[in-house]
Amino acid sequence: MAAFQTVKGFRDFFPEDCALRNYIFAQWRKTACRYGFVEYEGAVIEQTALYKKKSGDEITGQLFCFEDKGGREVALRPEVTPTLARMAAARQRDYRKPMKWFQIGSCFRYEEPQRGRTREFVQFNVDILGEAAQAADAELVAFSIDVMRSFGFGPEEFIIRLSDRRLWTQFLDAEKIAEEHRATFLQIIDKMERAPKEATDTKLKAIGLSLQQVQDFIASVDENSAVFAPLRQNLTARGLWNYVKIDPGIVRGLAYYTGTVFEVFDLKHNLRAIAGGGRYDNLVSLLSDGNVDLPACGFAMGDVVLTELINRSPDALENVAAWTREALSNDVYIVVADETKRTEALQTVTALRKAGLRVDFSLTAQKVGKQFQAAEAAKARFAVVIGAEYPLITVKNLINREQQELQAEVLAAKLVEQVSQPVYTALIA
Amino acid sequence: MAAFQTVKGFRDFFPEDCALRNYIFAQWRKTACRYGFVEYEGAVIEQTALYKKKSGDEITGQLFCFEDKGGREVALRPEVTPTLARMAAARQRDYRKPMKWFQIGSCFRYEEPQRGRTREFVQFNVDILGEAAQAADAELVAFSIDVMRSFGFGPEEFIIRLSDRRLWTQFLDAEKIAEEHRATFLQIIDKMERAPKEATDTKLKAIGLSLQQVQDFIASVDENSAVFAPLRQNLTARGLWNYVKIDPGIVRGLAYYTGTVFEVFDLKHNLRAIAGGGRYDNLVSLLSDGNVDLPACGFAMGDVVLTELINRSPDALENVAAWTREALSNDVYIVVADETKRTEALQTVTALRKAGLRVDFSLTAQKVGKQFQAAEAAKARFAVVIGAEYPLITVKNLINREQQELQAEVLAAKLVEQVSQPVYTALIA
Repeated sequence: MAAFQTVKGFRDFFPEDCALRNYIFAQWRKTACRYGFVEYEGAVIEQTALYKKKSGDEITGQLFCFEDKGGREVALRPEVTPTLARMAAARQRDYRKPMKWFQIGSCFRYEEPQRGRTREFVQFNVDILGEAAQAADAELVAFSIDVMRSFGFGPEEFIIRLSDRRLWTQFLDAEKIAEEHRATFLQIIDKMERAPKEATDTKLKAIGLSLQQVQDFIASVDENSAVFAPLRQNLTARGLWNYVKIDPGIVRGLAYYTGTVFEVFDLKHNLRAIAGGGRYDNLVSLLSDGNVDLPACGFAMGDVVLTELINRSPDALENVAAWTREALSNDVYIVVADETKRTEALQTVTALRKAGLRVDFSLTAQKVGKQFQAAEAAKARFAVVIGAEYPLITVKNLINREQQELQAEVLAAKLVEQVSQPVYTALIA
Repeated sequence: MAAFQTVKGFRDFFPEDCALRNYIFAQWRKTACRYGFVEYEGAVIEQTALYKKKSGDEITGQLFCFEDKGGREVALRPEVTPTLARMAAARQRDYRKPMKWFQIGSCFRYEEPQRGRTREFVQFNVDILGEAAQAADAELVAFSIDVMRSFGFGPEEFIIRLSDRRLWTQFLDAEKIAEEHRATFLQIIDKMERAPKEATDTKLKAIGLSLQQVQDFIASVDENSAVFAPLRQNLTARGLWNYVKIDPGIVRGLAYYTGTVFEVFDLKHNLRAIAGGGRYDNLVSLLSDGNVDLPACGFAMGDVVLTELINRSPDALENVAAWTREALSNDVYIVVADETKRTEALQTVTALRKAGLRVDFSLTAQKVGKQFQAAEAAKARFAVVIGAEYPLITVKNLINREQQELQAEVLAAKLVEQVSQPVYTALIA
């Protein structure tokens, strides 16, 4: 039997990786709070039927689905929007509108793993439910810009590609294209950017259109188009319109969008979309069998492409490094210089932890030199030496190398004073 | 088609529930940091083979397992210890010993849902790898006590039931019980407390023992037994031995424990175990095909029984209420009293958020009274009124009802001064 490996497409987060992941989650939460959103979480497994036909064929083909031991057809969620719509349909009456909700959790898609794509990834979902006005769409676009800025990215690094599904509805109406071809049409547009022109033209001709017609229509759309007026005015007032580029080629793969659609793209490395979303006014009604009608819009950002982008940005990495240093360090390392004082050492450990300090120590008898090495390895700020002189204690500052002698009874209070961030605050705040 | 429901045994966390969940996670993280542990996370799906025979028949019978689209036999993790052992076997050389690692994430078991049991639950895993001395076991028992105390529980509310698998090994050796019966024997002891005496006696007789022999042996074990001396000395020094009760009936269901075993039980409501763990010195070697030999011990605490216990404790609930109030509130609600000043309102929203304040506002034109209602509902500390007098702004403190007039240019700085916890710090620190 060989040693076990992770399943293909799944990830482990060793402490350094986990610190980066927590850093990302903290920036997500911080921006969500600044925007007045509250956190929720949904079930990670749903009935497979929840995804059939509501999200589009592409996503249902990528489902991790199976029959549970009770014969239920279930799936690991590939996205969170259907779960949110289900939850909103069940309990929206209990909440004031608009509901501004966010969520952070794992999603699963059976796709071929590649750069920027894993089979399990963490999604940050941000949604506004119960507000039909495009002011809600603008709030979300602004949010997506500010969350990128929270990682240190500016207008040279990313852009919002903005469109509206209704543009294409108008186009298809004008061209008298039958309803049955419209989902196919949107898929052609969604793939157009990366497909050969001839292939796109052939596919369009099969439903009675041509690439030239589509290109002409795209050329006729710009930021002055009436459909964008509310977002333009709103985002201009916020000083954020310079982050936005109108791009009718953005339609989003998911079937349920009804209005605004947008994606966040990096400008330097040509990675996959960092985030995307839009308005989905019919989904709650669809999933509640028409019982609840709730206009909605939202976007999701994954951790995989974002991590890729952070790893390529020296500025972003500097913030991560500071965070990681804090996450993997301790405030105090207790050095037991005299093993007959182990009881006093354990009392000191207990007292300092009670005061909120992050404290490590050698669990067993070790040479003093080795314990100081461990203190340095644990990136402790202070080494506290418990020796024969106890209750007199030598405290060595491992950053500036200064030394002080303190009585046991004042140790905790003195060290708390000297450690600016006692418990993990820099790490998760 | 009826409205969709959660799959049996799975949970949604609406914002109030999510706040409680985050409160629990924050206490877990805080205690882990105070004890000098670092966070990791493992894959949530593993090869099914990882659990076969290593964890015991009970847990493998409860697996959510299936074949993925690539024909791999995979399972949603029922516990995290095998994942940790796999990770440690792969990369332990990169880390100084002992490795003090913790993790927070979902696990899945197909069991009949009941009070204190769901099919998806969040586990807090705390492990020390690479330290054979029982000082590590003591550090973990102390940790489990302090994490309970962080929720406001004291010695009247919970107890640590402590034992050591080696006691039973000695007993079975003395009684000359064959190796093949020993797993069965431990399962009988594990279930003994809740099983009828006669049934236990019958089962024991089938492997050549009797209930009387077992009861006599249990009566012969107490806190003076040599096997407990290191833990007793260590935890007494920390002032924590009063939380511990020796109980040889605790053996833990999982097959891989080799020494110390313990469980955390509440004393008032007779709920299921809140947490449990012990020493598992052979698991890393077993999962790495003998390539890596690493002594280890750890414990896990689930969120379900703990939540149940919190909900029954007025003291614990008071802490939760303060947290939830903070999680579901905003710092500022912007009231747009003059719709012609919407641009200025959006600028103010942007400026206050940039300063780190949690800001909400009415996305569309609303009567001023309705906006003030929304401000109260959002539990905002301040209502900031943008009206015809702009850049003069009226600020109303919604807690003490005081009112002040501020110029737009100083607003952000003045409000940051007056809001003690600008961004989410109380919530996640």
